[in-house]
Amino acid sequence: MASYHKPESKTIQELKDIATKLRIHSVRATQITKSGHPTSCSSMAEIMSVLFFHTMRYKVSAPRDVNNDRFVLSKGHAAPILYAAWAEAGLFPTSELLNLRKFNNDLEGHPTPRLNFIDVGTGSLGQGLSVAAGMAYVGKNFDKSSYRVYVLVGDGESAEGSIWEALHFASYYGLDNLCVIFDINRLGQTQATSLEHNMEVYRVRLEAFGFNALVVDGHDVEELAKAFHEAQNTQGRPTAILAKTFKGRNFPNIEDELNWHGKALGANGDTVIQHLTSLLKNPGPLALHPQKPLVADAPIVDISNIKLSSPPNYKLGEKIATRLAYGNGLAKIAANNSRVVALDGDMRTSTFSDKIRTVDPSRYIECFIAEQNLVGVGIGMACRDRTVAFVSTFATFFTRAYDQIRMGAISQTNLNFVGSHAGCSIGEDGPSQMGLEDLAMFRAIPGATIFYPSDAVSTERAVELAANTKGICFIRTSRPETPVIYKNDKALAIGKAQVIKTSSKDQVLIIGAAVTLVEAILAADELAKSGINVRVMDPFTIKPIDAAGIIKNARETGGRIITVEDHYPEGGLGDAVLSAVAGVRDIIVKKLAVPVVPRSGPTAVLLDAYGISSRSIVTAVHEILKL
Amino acid sequence: MASYHKPESKTIQELKDIATKLRIHSVRATQITKSGHPTSCSSMAEIMSVLFFHTMRYKVSAPRDVNNDRFVLSKGHAAPILYAAWAEAGLFPTSELLNLRKFNNDLEGHPTPRLNFIDVGTGSLGQGLSVAAGMAYVGKNFDKSSYRVYVLVGDGESAEGSIWEALHFASYYGLDNLCVIFDINRLGQTQATSLEHNMEVYRVRLEAFGFNALVVDGHDVEELAKAFHEAQNTQGRPTAILAKTFKGRNFPNIEDELNWHGKALGANGDTVIQHLTSLLKNPGPLALHPQKPLVADAPIVDISNIKLSSPPNYKLGEKIATRLAYGNGLAKIAANNSRVVALDGDMRTSTFSDKIRTVDPSRYIECFIAEQNLVGVGIGMACRDRTVAFVSTFATFFTRAYDQIRMGAISQTNLNFVGSHAGCSIGEDGPSQMGLEDLAMFRAIPGATIFYPSDAVSTERAVELAANTKGICFIRTSRPETPVIYKNDKALAIGKAQVIKTSSKDQVLIIGAAVTLVEAILAADELAKSGINVRVMDPFTIKPIDAAGIIKNARETGGRIITVEDHYPEGGLGDAVLSAVAGVRDIIVKKLAVPVVPRSGPTAVLLDAYGISSRSIVTAVHEILKL
Repeated sequence: MASYHKPESKTIQELKDIATKLRIHSVRATQITKSGHPTSCSSMAEIMSVLFFHTMRYKVSAPRDVNNDRFVLSKGHAAPILYAAWAEAGLFPTSELLNLRKFNNDLEGHPTPRLNFIDVGTGSLGQGLSVAAGMAYVGKNFDKSSYRVYVLVGDGESAEGSIWEALHFASYYGLDNLCVIFDINRLGQTQATSLEHNMEVYRVRLEAFGFNALVVDGHDVEELAKAFHEAQNTQGRPTAILAKTFKGRNFPNIEDELNWHGKALGANGDTVIQHLTSLLKNPGPLALHPQKPLVADAPIVDISNIKLSSPPNYKLGEKIATRLAYGNGLAKIAANNSRVVALDGDMRTSTFSDKIRTVDPSRYIECFIAEQNLVGVGIGMACRDRTVAFVSTFATFFTRAYDQIRMGAISQTNLNFVGSHAGCSIGEDGPSQMGLEDLAMFRAIPGATIFYPSDAVSTERAVELAANTKGICFIRTSRPETPVIYKNDKALAIGKAQVIKTSSKDQVLIIGAAVTLVEAILAADELAKSGINVRVMDPFTIKPIDAAGIIKNARETGGRIITVEDHYPEGGLGDAVLSAVAGVRDIIVKKLAVPVVPRSGPTAVLLDAYGISSRSIVTAVHEILKL
Repeated sequence: MASYHKPESKTIQELKDIATKLRIHSVRATQITKSGHPTSCSSMAEIMSVLFFHTMRYKVSAPRDVNNDRFVLSKGHAAPILYAAWAEAGLFPTSELLNLRKFNNDLEGHPTPRLNFIDVGTGSLGQGLSVAAGMAYVGKNFDKSSYRVYVLVGDGESAEGSIWEALHFASYYGLDNLCVIFDINRLGQTQATSLEHNMEVYRVRLEAFGFNALVVDGHDVEELAKAFHEAQNTQGRPTAILAKTFKGRNFPNIEDELNWHGKALGANGDTVIQHLTSLLKNPGPLALHPQKPLVADAPIVDISNIKLSSPPNYKLGEKIATRLAYGNGLAKIAANNSRVVALDGDMRTSTFSDKIRTVDPSRYIECFIAEQNLVGVGIGMACRDRTVAFVSTFATFFTRAYDQIRMGAISQTNLNFVGSHAGCSIGEDGPSQMGLEDLAMFRAIPGATIFYPSDAVSTERAVELAANTKGICFIRTSRPETPVIYKNDKALAIGKAQVIKTSSKDQVLIIGAAVTLVEAILAADELAKSGINVRVMDPFTIKPIDAAGIIKNARETGGRIITVEDHYPEGGLGDAVLSAVAGVRDIIVKKLAVPVVPRSGPTAVLLDAYGISSRSIVTAVHEILKL
């Protein structure tokens, strides 16, 4: 280990003063807005002081520089002290801190990447560590660079299972460039945390999870500086600094007291500021400045304009599962861009994310059965445009990470989700494995793009489009083999539906996707025998949905639409189509969807039993023609 | 500790034979259906044999008897061996096992409570332990009964954070009536688990999490029997039995080999069955039978017909937050029924679940910041109708437990969810704390009932109705104070909307709830000044939605509807209304909703900025009148 040099006493005093200044800023800002979490800020003031003015290496003027050390504030409610640290470091005037929580000011109640020094939004607890682990994985394995990743976790949020998923991931992959600091201030919102100040339990648990675990006095800048030095010089495993702290530290009559969570100090504010000010040995300008990165060894990468290495290569009518086509598409874009990576939760042979390993095994990251961490790591890996990441599992298991996905939207992440085994068409495994609410879940994510490709050709194109589309993308794939319906050179676009079957005498527009598109085509053929012509449409994307195309075709078919989807009736294709035509008079829509929790059984039996087979569509056409 | 008597050698041999029989059943059933997880069954055969024929006490003829020991198979994919154990115990003929996974047979791919010996559906991994902990909490603290709770967890799923949340909960509350068995068979679906057979790491982690941790040879029935005895006699903390096992145990050329997850044995089936049969020392009928409960000490409880202890008591126009009214209603039903309980994740002073503590502190269960476990424990507490449980946190944090909620529907749970802090109306805390996708999430749950009460009176009635409604109920509450609009004796019903403002000249129907209903009323008053009359409706429940009432009122108002909701545009009130009118020609709908990730700011500013204020409604009315 590089030998440790105790900081000069002048430095130590200045770090103490900075901590006090950060406390003062946190109190002042929350006093003005009359809300926020000053006591949660105060417990971590020395940690922030030492990190930002002694340990971390970063360019204040370029917070997103790829060579900077990263910092994630997992306990996002302590945002005021994070803002204060960057202001004191010199990024913006400290006077700006007083605009905390004002509408249209980016210093929001919890941090978001609207600020250039924030990589991910936090505020839903227990998520920062997974993100930090994703960043550290990239730093160690893809960037192979010197930057380090720091993440500050609250003791309250350490009850979240996602924290333990992430700890296990970090130690399993030996992420020694990751340092997690637990701010153990004993108090939650409504009562003491379950472990209070039982530091030994924390130490034993962190050691058991493979960390170099160091217990320190979190208000002692010297102990902190020494622990961070040890973390920097520990190889092969990540370090956890377990900082014993007090909530509301140095706030007279408030420190370590209950009932002070999440509120401004009110009438106590002046006394507290007065007391804090009295603690400053040197209230003047800072002599200490943040340290710049020692080397600029992170590579320049280009993740723009990603293309399939070769066009889709299928035969019309050939039967291929869209999940397999996902794997093919993934491998093709991975062959063309070294920053395409895939993550999965022990499902790679079912989702076919496996295929990326044929191109480069190192670009597959096994996250085991821990979907929250899978998604969090993916968000971390996509940060600062370091990778184009695809995370996959069964569509329904993304429900496990809905909070992470929701926060991903706030984080402006560019992560691609691929959910296989959509709907009851998976068959015998039964309802626990069927994705029947995934479209509802992703549709309610602002800015998300949802692909529901119906064949292998369009699936490969969906992968290519997703790789180049900002924001959250979701690709829904199916287990059964379905026929190829598009020529290999078919041009497909986001928000553009395709008419699959049409005549001038069509009386109904049927919209289906994947297995239900197949059923719709069968129904159309069946109906044609009795002289009823229907039009069949593949939406390709569910969000955005091709409103103009749907309205035009609905008007040409008597204003009658039938949607048919392998999904519950709420929030999916049917609701998307209803929204598209909501403002047009004289269009009616009949939704066919899975109405109840399905049973186990063969695919064809289930599609028919739950009313989304060709037989059900034929019946629905007869019914809608009578309305 | 009660002294341990080694079972007679005849018993030991019979337990071994039963394990072999269970293996044979598992192989035979999956051979016929050509799918399933025989190797995952085989690793746990001795565990099942000892539990079901030596350790557990239960009435085979009455699987849901309240005095029975409980068993939860967290690794639900091993369903065939669970079915086999009950068949061998005598509940149904073993020949029935061959109907595994057939459509309309209840022996599904993963267990569901369609079977009378299953309390909860499993199959999404990592959830069984929370449920079991909830059952054990009830057994210890409310039933104060002798029954014990056993849960079998796979090693693959022990990577799920929810497992570690549940472990912490169980040890924190000293649930010594809980025994968790880890079936550590080394292999996941696609590769070895991260910890393989590193038993010492498991032991240290479980001890660190407060368990009595016992490492055993999971194929040695005698070691297992002894460990279960120790678990039964350990007080003050739960026991974890860490069973070292082999996947595909006793399947020649398959045992401990990769690539045998989740598939029938195909051409190897006959050889395997032949080999297993050769291991049977006594292939004839069983001499061993399950043990009945020693005592019947679980109380008879009545959770039917629950009423508020006194009617709502508010003044018209008085401003009360619906979240506070939830607390009032909860306390009132708790006063009337001793089995009403409330669980929360360190938010009780914000959600007002706190109020139950004024009635009986013991009926509040603090689950700390671990929402997956919060929901899982709630499902466990509601099992077998032992309690009427309400779980609460911020509406948006239920996204953390969407997988548990989804599985709750499969589990036919009767759990009540209360999500506070709906929408951007929460103000300065910012988007991470705002419930903007909760309606979409719960609408896509089959059979769910969704209440979105608009004032204090209707909130108390929603609580009362939810307590008496089977299935999943969700009550959405708001942070700001809103005026009381209903008289205290107002009759409210599920699926019945209320018209709040009406005239014979209404030109538009406006549907809003809570904060947006207030805005709708303001807009109506404003529009009336310029001679435009609009009708205002409170839907009360979003699922089921009052389709007949909406269609009738829409027809009376020119077929024009405006929905206004503090939620993202997808999956919420607007989509519910669209679905209600989908089949009616000549009705148009304009959805007002929060279109983007909001910012921090004052409530009124945010409602206006995101287009759901009275001003936006007035504009929308003018627009829709032009269509």
